[in-house]
Amino acid sequence: MRPIAIIGIGQTKIDEQWEKSIREIAVEAIYFALKDAGRETVGGIFVGNMMSGIINNQNNLGPLIADWAGLKVPAVKVEAACGSGGAALRSGLMAVASGEIDSALVVGVEKMTDRHPHEVTAALATAADADYEVEMGVTFVGLNALLMRRYMHEYGWKHADFAPFAINAHANAMHNPYARLHQKITLDDFEKSGMIATPINLLDASPIGDGAAALYIVPADTVWGGRRILIAGSASNTDTIAIHDRPDPLFLSAANKSAQEAYRQAGVSPNDIDVFELHDAFTIMSALSLEACGFAERGQGPRLGLDGHITPAGRIPVMTRGGLKARGHPVGATGVYQVVEVVQQLRGECGETQVADARIGMAQNIGGSGATIVTHILRKE
Amino acid sequence: MRPIAIIGIGQTKIDEQWEKSIREIAVEAIYFALKDAGRETVGGIFVGNMMSGIINNQNNLGPLIADWAGLKVPAVKVEAACGSGGAALRSGLMAVASGEIDSALVVGVEKMTDRHPHEVTAALATAADADYEVEMGVTFVGLNALLMRRYMHEYGWKHADFAPFAINAHANAMHNPYARLHQKITLDDFEKSGMIATPINLLDASPIGDGAAALYIVPADTVWGGRRILIAGSASNTDTIAIHDRPDPLFLSAANKSAQEAYRQAGVSPNDIDVFELHDAFTIMSALSLEACGFAERGQGPRLGLDGHITPAGRIPVMTRGGLKARGHPVGATGVYQVVEVVQQLRGECGETQVADARIGMAQNIGGSGATIVTHILRKE
Repeated sequence: MRPIAIIGIGQTKIDEQWEKSIREIAVEAIYFALKDAGRETVGGIFVGNMMSGIINNQNNLGPLIADWAGLKVPAVKVEAACGSGGAALRSGLMAVASGEIDSALVVGVEKMTDRHPHEVTAALATAADADYEVEMGVTFVGLNALLMRRYMHEYGWKHADFAPFAINAHANAMHNPYARLHQKITLDDFEKSGMIATPINLLDASPIGDGAAALYIVPADTVWGGRRILIAGSASNTDTIAIHDRPDPLFLSAANKSAQEAYRQAGVSPNDIDVFELHDAFTIMSALSLEACGFAERGQGPRLGLDGHITPAGRIPVMTRGGLKARGHPVGATGVYQVVEVVQQLRGECGETQVADARIGMAQNIGGSGATIVTHILRKE
Repeated sequence: MRPIAIIGIGQTKIDEQWEKSIREIAVEAIYFALKDAGRETVGGIFVGNMMSGIINNQNNLGPLIADWAGLKVPAVKVEAACGSGGAALRSGLMAVASGEIDSALVVGVEKMTDRHPHEVTAALATAADADYEVEMGVTFVGLNALLMRRYMHEYGWKHADFAPFAINAHANAMHNPYARLHQKITLDDFEKSGMIATPINLLDASPIGDGAAALYIVPADTVWGGRRILIAGSASNTDTIAIHDRPDPLFLSAANKSAQEAYRQAGVSPNDIDVFELHDAFTIMSALSLEACGFAERGQGPRLGLDGHITPAGRIPVMTRGGLKARGHPVGATGVYQVVEVVQQLRGECGETQVADARIGMAQNIGGSGATIVTHILRKE
């Protein structure tokens, strides 16, 4: 496939943005990405969004956002639950690589905080299997709680062993002006936090929010030097949505396949990855992602945190801008935020949480509890 | 862009399929498309769907459908309101053309009849502008009624002048076993039908339904002869969603741009089109589409029907399998049904409604009242 480069990034602060509509939030990120890329128009727009039809009574986000941006170009929405942002990037990338368009804006956007939490909980559950999971009364966090409990049982971890994932995320978010939460936490905070679905408590879980992030991509051979960041690998895969129907629920097989394919495309191995923005919707997902992608043995994900390897100065820095946990998780936008943040790392724009000499970064976006996986590997020249 | 061919088609009857889930309906169409193509696996799946998150409490249709089909491959949902099916085909086409995958299944699916009509009406309204149209209390059919009333006022048509669109659609659907309605109608039926939103009555409007249609596509140069149908043109464009905000509400400018680009790619003009599956969600949309695509002068769309040019034996046969009006309009699936039907015409499989010597066919799918337009031109070798 024709190589693609990212030449512009944009993002909004993740927050309760009650004074702005979904189109305004999306276009704010687009505006910054256009400015960053030094462009005024584009060949097409790919919107990543999960729940605007449910929460904002608005589908058809493609033309809605293209029009508000003053760009009457082909535009479409891509949905893969919480993996929508990564999936939108992949769709935009293939469109540009096909030669059909010469550039694309990929924008992930979600506006979740206008509605009652019960409605948002129901909307999030649409990422699970409606007939075989949700119909039984389980929520999305409930499903992840079952996974975490089983994992702790199988491998002998206690709840506190997951604390480093949350502590690292919150510490890093202190230096990210776009992050939802600016609040340092301790092990004591983590252990005393309010329970949501045993064993997942408030500090295991990522906060929802309103926000948008955008990328401007072009064929790599049409731009030179400057701040061009290459997309060296892009791969997605799927698994059964219903967790109880997977042969091995504690192994994210689609994450494994997707990462292996991205490594193959980029010609790298996990050892070469300088920074990894993973999908820490819950602390258990951090452990499972690290294992599926080859950074830890089966059942040993928490060890990386406990041994201090996941901080910006560690062996495999994760959530360097706060992750889903503290930057926030506007679901359909998250996958684009992750890639924006990897670009910031490779450009050396991350200040206090900058990973030294970062040249190769990875972002992995998950839709459902491992059902849709999209992995991107970026490279600085 | 690398040329793409359709080598397999599949569809289900459009009906109230209360005994089947959305995944079962989708996989039924996929099964027929795989069988028709003589294939057992595929590189990726692109799902066109508008409202499963709202009506079926189910997002993440990509992995849901891939898993049910026994195909654990990359899979994603594309949404562009009622234009979702066409948009999914376009996404699949660019993915295959990029070289990233060697084949794609495109499946449009919608299951709409399980819920109360009020809920479906609200879900359909998410295709309009939530903030500037729907918030004012107007429904989707209400918006189209305003368009139709203005059109009749501007150009002096009376309601009965739109009858041929509905009469032709119903007559053709009599010979399509997959159609929702098998009921011949007369001018008298059309005029006496129950009013929905003046001037749109029941026989101006397309019925909703549950159904799925699927296409199997590959690079054209990887298959030869047989029943291969080439995609000679594929183009989409967008316009402002809110009708009152368009400079000229009675001209579908995105349809015009999209059709012109598809004609350019295919190297044809409207005179070369042997069959045209247009998006007759309401009779007014038939008139506007025919005008925007160059088959009639501004304001003269109804004349084609009154003069007998739109029947299978006419100058520009439309809705040859029943159209949205009588085949039915399972919204996110419709764009794929249209392309399946054009393939049937070019293969010569349409029996009583076969267009003689059909070699070049067009399908145009619309999301919102002209906001997202996707046009495909197919060619038989």
